Amino acid sequence: MIKTPYLLFLGDAPDALAAKVAQGIKDWRPDNCVGQLRMEGCQADLGLPDMTLEQAKAAGAQTLVIGVANRGGVISPAWKKVLVAALEEGFDLASGLHNLLREEPDLVAVAEACGRTLHDVRVPEVDYPIANGVKRTGKRVLAVGTDCSVGKMYTALALDKAMQAAGLKSTFRATGQTGILITGDGVPLDAVIADFMAGSIEWLTPDNDPDHWDIIEGQGSLYHVSFSGVTMALIHGGQPDALILCHEPTRAHMRGLPGYRLPTLEAVRDLSLQLAQVANPDCVVAGVSINTQHMGEDEAARYCADIEAQLGLPTVDPFRHGADRLASALAAL
Amino acid sequence: MIKTPYLLFLGDAPDALAAKVAQGIKDWRPDNCVGQLRMEGCQADLGLPDMTLEQAKAAGAQTLVIGVANRGGVISPAWKKVLVAALEEGFDLASGLHNLLREEPDLVAVAEACGRTLHDVRVPEVDYPIANGVKRTGKRVLAVGTDCSVGKMYTALALDKAMQAAGLKSTFRATGQTGILITGDGVPLDAVIADFMAGSIEWLTPDNDPDHWDIIEGQGSLYHVSFSGVTMALIHGGQPDALILCHEPTRAHMRGLPGYRLPTLEAVRDLSLQLAQVANPDCVVAGVSINTQHMGEDEAARYCADIEAQLGLPTVDPFRHGADRLASALAAL
Repeated sequence: MIKTPYLLFLGDAPDALAAKVAQGIKDWRPDNCVGQLRMEGCQADLGLPDMTLEQAKAAGAQTLVIGVANRGGVISPAWKKVLVAALEEGFDLASGLHNLLREEPDLVAVAEACGRTLHDVRVPEVDYPIANGVKRTGKRVLAVGTDCSVGKMYTALALDKAMQAAGLKSTFRATGQTGILITGDGVPLDAVIADFMAGSIEWLTPDNDPDHWDIIEGQGSLYHVSFSGVTMALIHGGQPDALILCHEPTRAHMRGLPGYRLPTLEAVRDLSLQLAQVANPDCVVAGVSINTQHMGEDEAARYCADIEAQLGLPTVDPFRHGADRLASALAAL
Repeated sequence: MIKTPYLLFLGDAPDALAAKVAQGIKDWRPDNCVGQLRMEGCQADLGLPDMTLEQAKAAGAQTLVIGVANRGGVISPAWKKVLVAALEEGFDLASGLHNLLREEPDLVAVAEACGRTLHDVRVPEVDYPIANGVKRTGKRVLAVGTDCSVGKMYTALALDKAMQAAGLKSTFRATGQTGILITGDGVPLDAVIADFMAGSIEWLTPDNDPDHWDIIEGQGSLYHVSFSGVTMALIHGGQPDALILCHEPTRAHMRGLPGYRLPTLEAVRDLSLQLAQVANPDCVVAGVSINTQHMGEDEAARYCADIEAQLGLPTVDPFRHGADRLASALAAL
């Protein structure tokens, strides 16, 4: 869908976190990344070669991917200059911003004049069906979290990598804009019309080989009141055979919801499994993924060991420890 | 929002069921209905005076409401003639059809020429916020069902009527197109973008008097895999103080999902309450509404008594028995 390889646009990112989309692409599909384009004052650095548009084009890049959040919800004149120049240089543009490229008349006009394509991955481009609940062939695993932004995408990508390294058949199925930019395909679930949410996930994870695993990126949390409906649709549309529980242990409250405490892993395990078994009575919880980024090495190892003993499930931080044990747990099902 | 009173358009309805939207308006807001307009071959009859456009206009009708489903997903030429004539006669049009009036160029052109308004209640006209989960003042009750189309809207409307008759403060809050046509306002939840579902329900049920009840129309079912995400958003966005369980006892399987059996009322009670208490720890289950339309009088009474004994909750068919006991249960909380 989106032509590779990419030149990653970091703009005037105020810090590394602002460029996390670009970081994700570079981490998971390094072969897709020719270089980075940074404007004056950019505080992010992916460690890729800094390139001008001309240099990147000469190096084979096809698409300029906006890998950075914009400030104040507008595409600034400074960005516009670069984006217009990129179109003129022969790049397609790809973006997951809330502001759509297709709603910027100048970009639309220049893209048309230059015969280039604008990809807004935040917007569905498919008319999804209503879910029919029919059992599909192949296996599916879904990452479910105690909260939003606890590492569900990272877990799914790491699991996919570990499974392929082990010679197993798997496909990462993106359900958010970063995942879609990384893989070039997927469902921007948070932008899907309510009636078609579960159907979009059925569409995303069709019949497959009996020994193939779709690794479905999770969204939200059943315990996050803003987005729980999205999580619910993933559980019922995905009809997972296995769930991986994802958790970040240092949160004081649910993301964006002061006053809402995080649920226990046991609560998420029991509730998710009960709901998943409506669509797939054979679903099991296969493992736990802990995001230990705010912990020291020893503390992280101890925490994972404690959770493993407490829940009786393989427990790792895929970033620190790899996802091999989660992959093995799935392969053993 | 939609100007009243209405002339109800029944078109060429092949049976009474096809005109159930019109029936709902007539049942719940009879004062809003001046008459009915039926085309040749129409098999539905609301018992309202049959009127031409001219007669209805003379009787004060302001809006022609399409109260009938269309066949084959198109607005037929025969319907178009009537709709165009209605605009020319000075009516606004209101519709809950999937085919939008605003996407019919002839209707748009005539409406503009005549200075009339086209209302497509299936499409949100508000930019809803993302839910913030903040506790709101006033009381809320939500109807939750074992399945889709078991009578949740009817239950909520009957409850609203019973509460007002008892001198209690209440407002029916519509979340589907029929409810919106009945009241002239609400959220077409099935057409809302995923990220904003819960926020749309917070918007629909704002702060209110401490003794005021918002009676929120339910949608879908936690056990219906096609639409469970919508139900989830109602439970978390509505932050209900009370739930009414709704059930239709004669279903062989979930609506549209052969192979999916209905859950028990106990399962729906426990799961709904657990989820509701994430947003409102004080939520309780207040009563049960049984749709006994496919049962005889004795069988219906016996069934409700059995459920009442089984669950220890007031159990009625609001259509047969009224909703007074449910209203009393809420008033007693």
